[in-house]
Amino acid sequence: MTVEAAHCLTVPVVILENEADSPAGQIAAREFVGHWSNQEVLASFAHACDVITLENEFVDAGILHWLETQGKPVYPSSHTLALIQDKAKQKHTLYSAGLPVPPFTDFEYQAEINAFAKQFGYPLILKACRNGYDGRGNFRINGETEIAEGCAKLGYPERELLVEAFIPFIKELAVMVVRAQDGTTALYPVVETVQRDHICHSVTAPAAISPALAEEAQDIARKAIETIKGVGVFGVEMFLTADDQILINELAPRPHNSGHYTIEACQTSQFENLLRVVLGLPVGSTALTAPAAMVNLLGATNSPTNPKGVEAAYAAVPELNLHLYGKKQSRVGRKMGHLTVLSPHATAETALARAETAAAYIKI
Amino acid sequence: MTVEAAHCLTVPVVILENEADSPAGQIAAREFVGHWSNQEVLASFAHACDVITLENEFVDAGILHWLETQGKPVYPSSHTLALIQDKAKQKHTLYSAGLPVPPFTDFEYQAEINAFAKQFGYPLILKACRNGYDGRGNFRINGETEIAEGCAKLGYPERELLVEAFIPFIKELAVMVVRAQDGTTALYPVVETVQRDHICHSVTAPAAISPALAEEAQDIARKAIETIKGVGVFGVEMFLTADDQILINELAPRPHNSGHYTIEACQTSQFENLLRVVLGLPVGSTALTAPAAMVNLLGATNSPTNPKGVEAAYAAVPELNLHLYGKKQSRVGRKMGHLTVLSPHATAETALARAETAAAYIKI
Repeated sequence: MTVEAAHCLTVPVVILENEADSPAGQIAAREFVGHWSNQEVLASFAHACDVITLENEFVDAGILHWLETQGKPVYPSSHTLALIQDKAKQKHTLYSAGLPVPPFTDFEYQAEINAFAKQFGYPLILKACRNGYDGRGNFRINGETEIAEGCAKLGYPERELLVEAFIPFIKELAVMVVRAQDGTTALYPVVETVQRDHICHSVTAPAAISPALAEEAQDIARKAIETIKGVGVFGVEMFLTADDQILINELAPRPHNSGHYTIEACQTSQFENLLRVVLGLPVGSTALTAPAAMVNLLGATNSPTNPKGVEAAYAAVPELNLHLYGKKQSRVGRKMGHLTVLSPHATAETALARAETAAAYIKI
Repeated sequence: MTVEAAHCLTVPVVILENEADSPAGQIAAREFVGHWSNQEVLASFAHACDVITLENEFVDAGILHWLETQGKPVYPSSHTLALIQDKAKQKHTLYSAGLPVPPFTDFEYQAEINAFAKQFGYPLILKACRNGYDGRGNFRINGETEIAEGCAKLGYPERELLVEAFIPFIKELAVMVVRAQDGTTALYPVVETVQRDHICHSVTAPAAISPALAEEAQDIARKAIETIKGVGVFGVEMFLTADDQILINELAPRPHNSGHYTIEACQTSQFENLLRVVLGLPVGSTALTAPAAMVNLLGATNSPTNPKGVEAAYAAVPELNLHLYGKKQSRVGRKMGHLTVLSPHATAETALARAETAAAYIKI
């Protein structure tokens, strides 16, 4: 979707991807195929670029640093990525900056989990410090007897873990933050996200919360990205508790699923704003133009991609905006596309109902 | 822009274009390079397609008919194109259907122009029946002494011409009509267009006219496309006179400049709806989501394309949506891109002022 945005500005995009004919590679000016750890491919790729950005937070910060030493600006920087990639480091950084995060600790010995539980009670969330996403790398510990199982499942002690208090949230919120090279920020509206099986299911924009809470959430999101000196576009995921506390759950250093609705529903999409930041162009307006909702389309089977029900979805919801990603292979739970509905003369809740109606028809 | 819409649906598009590396070819799945009159290229192209559409109304109707005989559906059909390509035939068809058109006549002898002028007065508009666009192929005759010059300029007698009464319009209006394979229609809002030097300069959506007039304009537009049995997306350009008469100026059998605003400002863009019709999918909602305006970006010099002022435009108008087309060569007056501004909390006139502000910065 960043490549699509680049096309309107006639900015040629070069992709580095593990597999040939990737969704981005299909429409990019050029596609390098290989892993970022392959020095030869990486060097050829870097040579073809004036400036580099990411849509994947797992690229090793050391490799990003090497690109920077080659005179290729990387946004967000290797410094920012290093702070985000390690969830323990991320949480320490945010906590040290006075930002609200759930109680957490990293630990050396399993026994420390028990001590943490005595203070905060069960359930706890065990998290791998690196390479977790969509709930992979997380494990919920409901009681002491499950500690060993959780640690083993997540690869402890080879893999570093942290443990977090479970937050009984009433809503999950998210804000996309744009931060330019000069440090100025622009904030998209606060949205409500719903996860199913730890994967983003829907996003409602704007979130049905008070203006004061929305301002607080935006303020927290802005400070979080300033704290990590982020340059680019960032997703800030937050919990809202019954007593109106907002806590940062996680940061994503890239256009984020909770910002896909911005393509149709905001003056400038998150993808175009990433481009603008990377190119040093002024950041575009992040204002919402209409209440909107997005629903993800996840793979229903493990098979070559073959979307069904598109026609019925269009017939049922004429205002449907469908985005299929062109991934060749469907897998159960894989993000294969998304859809967005705008309700300019109604509410975001109306938009969500319409989006859910459309999504129910589509099987990929 | 149709290829961009197709990408969201993962529909592979094959392009036939005269020159390699065309804007559409750059992002299409495959590009055939050659003229449509080249039978060999045309046959290879047809072989690669399941269904064919146009973004150029000059493709010879006979060639489209040949494609149809090869079992390749063409939308709009060769029948429709034959009615539109010849402006005299187009006007006769609309007039015979009882639709309002300016007084006109085709003629064999120049003397007939004089007779026509006696009835309708000067000025008159002389038009080439075929291959005119953006004012090319038109000539304004202000008095009898200019008849010979106009006829010679437009290539008479080798080229067929028609003559039309000059309509002292107060506004130019346009409606995009979507007509599906089953004959059902969907209408975009009535917009006001402004031409400069016969080239579309700006589009304001919706037009500032009464609901009754808007309904009448939509009704005329719908009937015009039904009359020519059009299947696809059509631009219907109209004149509005001081005494609230609406007259059809011209039809375009394709996504049209006066519908570019639909990308951002309508639930479904004209490009996606063309795709939907061609693929036999249900037509998407044509509703406006916010008042909007579009301004064209025309070439300012004859030189390789090198846009200037984009940064300043973005800084001045943060809600700007810029579309550059990727044409390699700029020429004075050539359409090099366009920009759209939405004003969800204001009027289309506000949007137009903002769009003009942005456009003033950009030189291509």
